[in-house]
Amino acid sequence: MGEHVAVPARRIVLARRPVGLPRGDDFATETINLPPLADQEVAVETLYLSVDPYMRNRMGGPEGRGPAQVLGTPVAGSVIGRVTQSRSVAWAVGDVVLAGYGWQTAAVVPEGAVRAVDTHGLPQTTALGVLGSTGMTGYFGMREVGRPAPGETVVVSAAAGAVGLVASQVARILGARVIGVAGSEAKGAYLTGDARLAAAINYHRTDFADALAAQCPDGVQVYFDNVGGAVSRAVLGHIAMRARIVVCGQIAEYNGERPGGEAPPIPTLLLHHGATMQGFMVMHYADRAAEARAQLAAWIHGGQLHYEETIADGFDETVDAFRSLFAGANLGKLLVHVGG
Amino acid sequence: MGEHVAVPARRIVLARRPVGLPRGDDFATETINLPPLADQEVAVETLYLSVDPYMRNRMGGPEGRGPAQVLGTPVAGSVIGRVTQSRSVAWAVGDVVLAGYGWQTAAVVPEGAVRAVDTHGLPQTTALGVLGSTGMTGYFGMREVGRPAPGETVVVSAAAGAVGLVASQVARILGARVIGVAGSEAKGAYLTGDARLAAAINYHRTDFADALAAQCPDGVQVYFDNVGGAVSRAVLGHIAMRARIVVCGQIAEYNGERPGGEAPPIPTLLLHHGATMQGFMVMHYADRAAEARAQLAAWIHGGQLHYEETIADGFDETVDAFRSLFAGANLGKLLVHVGG
Repeated sequence: MGEHVAVPARRIVLARRPVGLPRGDDFATETINLPPLADQEVAVETLYLSVDPYMRNRMGGPEGRGPAQVLGTPVAGSVIGRVTQSRSVAWAVGDVVLAGYGWQTAAVVPEGAVRAVDTHGLPQTTALGVLGSTGMTGYFGMREVGRPAPGETVVVSAAAGAVGLVASQVARILGARVIGVAGSEAKGAYLTGDARLAAAINYHRTDFADALAAQCPDGVQVYFDNVGGAVSRAVLGHIAMRARIVVCGQIAEYNGERPGGEAPPIPTLLLHHGATMQGFMVMHYADRAAEARAQLAAWIHGGQLHYEETIADGFDETVDAFRSLFAGANLGKLLVHVGG
Repeated sequence: MGEHVAVPARRIVLARRPVGLPRGDDFATETINLPPLADQEVAVETLYLSVDPYMRNRMGGPEGRGPAQVLGTPVAGSVIGRVTQSRSVAWAVGDVVLAGYGWQTAAVVPEGAVRAVDTHGLPQTTALGVLGSTGMTGYFGMREVGRPAPGETVVVSAAAGAVGLVASQVARILGARVIGVAGSEAKGAYLTGDARLAAAINYHRTDFADALAAQCPDGVQVYFDNVGGAVSRAVLGHIAMRARIVVCGQIAEYNGERPGGEAPPIPTLLLHHGATMQGFMVMHYADRAAEARAQLAAWIHGGQLHYEETIADGFDETVDAFRSLFAGANLGKLLVHVGG
């Protein structure tokens, strides 16, 4: 197999557990040399990497929520990369693959830890977004858990984010009247424009609660929740009988924010409305991912579903990009372009 | 139709909205004369009436929870009665019927407001208990919402109450390992004795949390919750991945008790476990009541399902009986024997 030539790679590790909103110095960038390949391994150079709110949860903190990432290890997550060395019969140098090694410019992984990128004629980057985990989450969360019927009122929080944009449009395609909650007037204009939602409400408005009430005269049949916190408290005040609440993310709480005020106890709220609240995990739908990708791609090609990507340029932007998720800077899926 | 002869009846009305635990003087007993029957009406004398925790919720209070009963009107609820006068071709004098007029010794109602008692060879009183709304609630709540698989761990709160006793035994019949939570050692002995549950825990024990943890080493797949409050907080700390939580009652909170302590936010808890919490309303299963009655009766006749009734004697005991529900005085269904 020839001499091993040391290949340097950079990686971003968790240096300490963030308190509240992650800071730049909660992370450290290291340069390592990739190990030589063993049999059935490949070396992959990163083209794009994904930053997602759920990653915050794995980083832990003083509250100790979520399964904690080991300090000093790279932040795990999805990447698109290109095979640069191969000792696998399954993969050839030059193949573009999806992997889960996270915030690294390159890595050596077993052949079974990568899979082919299948984007149905759409750009490669969609494999990390609308055709990746976030798209699957919006699709299955809305279609299988929210299950809106035609004419029902659906509210989606963080509707202009990666998951929300898919979830809200899936509900619209299923015939529901969809109200998107987002953090700026510009996002609202996008949601009622390109995404063709029935209404959008900026949660920074001082009259947010009134604006929401005005849009839900008959209550909310489905609430697809990406945020928790004050937005959820307001929406839960309007749920209809037999409502379905999909808890998909609680970004407002990942950094330690706890709901204030005197919210009604959720079990009592559910009891009075015969309503259901379900925590959604996309991994439970892994065996149906191909179906979802095909359906989402068909809707995109048919002009029914819009997707958006916000792409930060350069590996060194990774931590800032991640931090910007919690300020709602992104429209659609947030990625980092690393190379290639 | 002959001369109308005035028939006196007594009824218990809501005199004021209770604050916290209902008091005797929140109610007033009145004597009225029944009105003459119109066409297609029947007069019914009460044999047994039902007292149920959910009634507290309708009485309202300073917190204004639930749809409020109108002050000065009788407390609504199920009764078994005997037809004493009839201007209906559907019902004859002497028929034993089920009605919903509540805490009254007799009433005149439309023919469509009563239905035949169908107890599959079991005593009449079961129409208000194991074959009535409480039995339906335990049956459908466990079978259709909890859906325990064989070998799964199920926890039922208020397991010795009317609903809990059915729910916990249905889970056991479906093959689950059932842990009943109840408020006394005697109830616990009943639950592991006649009801054949795997374990019972008295929530008054100072080591309740430890005892619960010891019984749930692999987590709780189904929690059937009749009580809320501190018991629920403890059980929710042990839910397994993909747990189902059936919120059937929140008796600890009906009287204004709010959960204290630092419970994890429920949406976050559900998200981390991919779990589902559903508010259960038996009315949503009304069209399947005959199926449930037949199944429950078959299990009782086959010795698989035990039921219990606690019967207070005399209409004047109604308010005290109702109040005793919140002290957990009853084993199984609590009824008041009124006459006949």
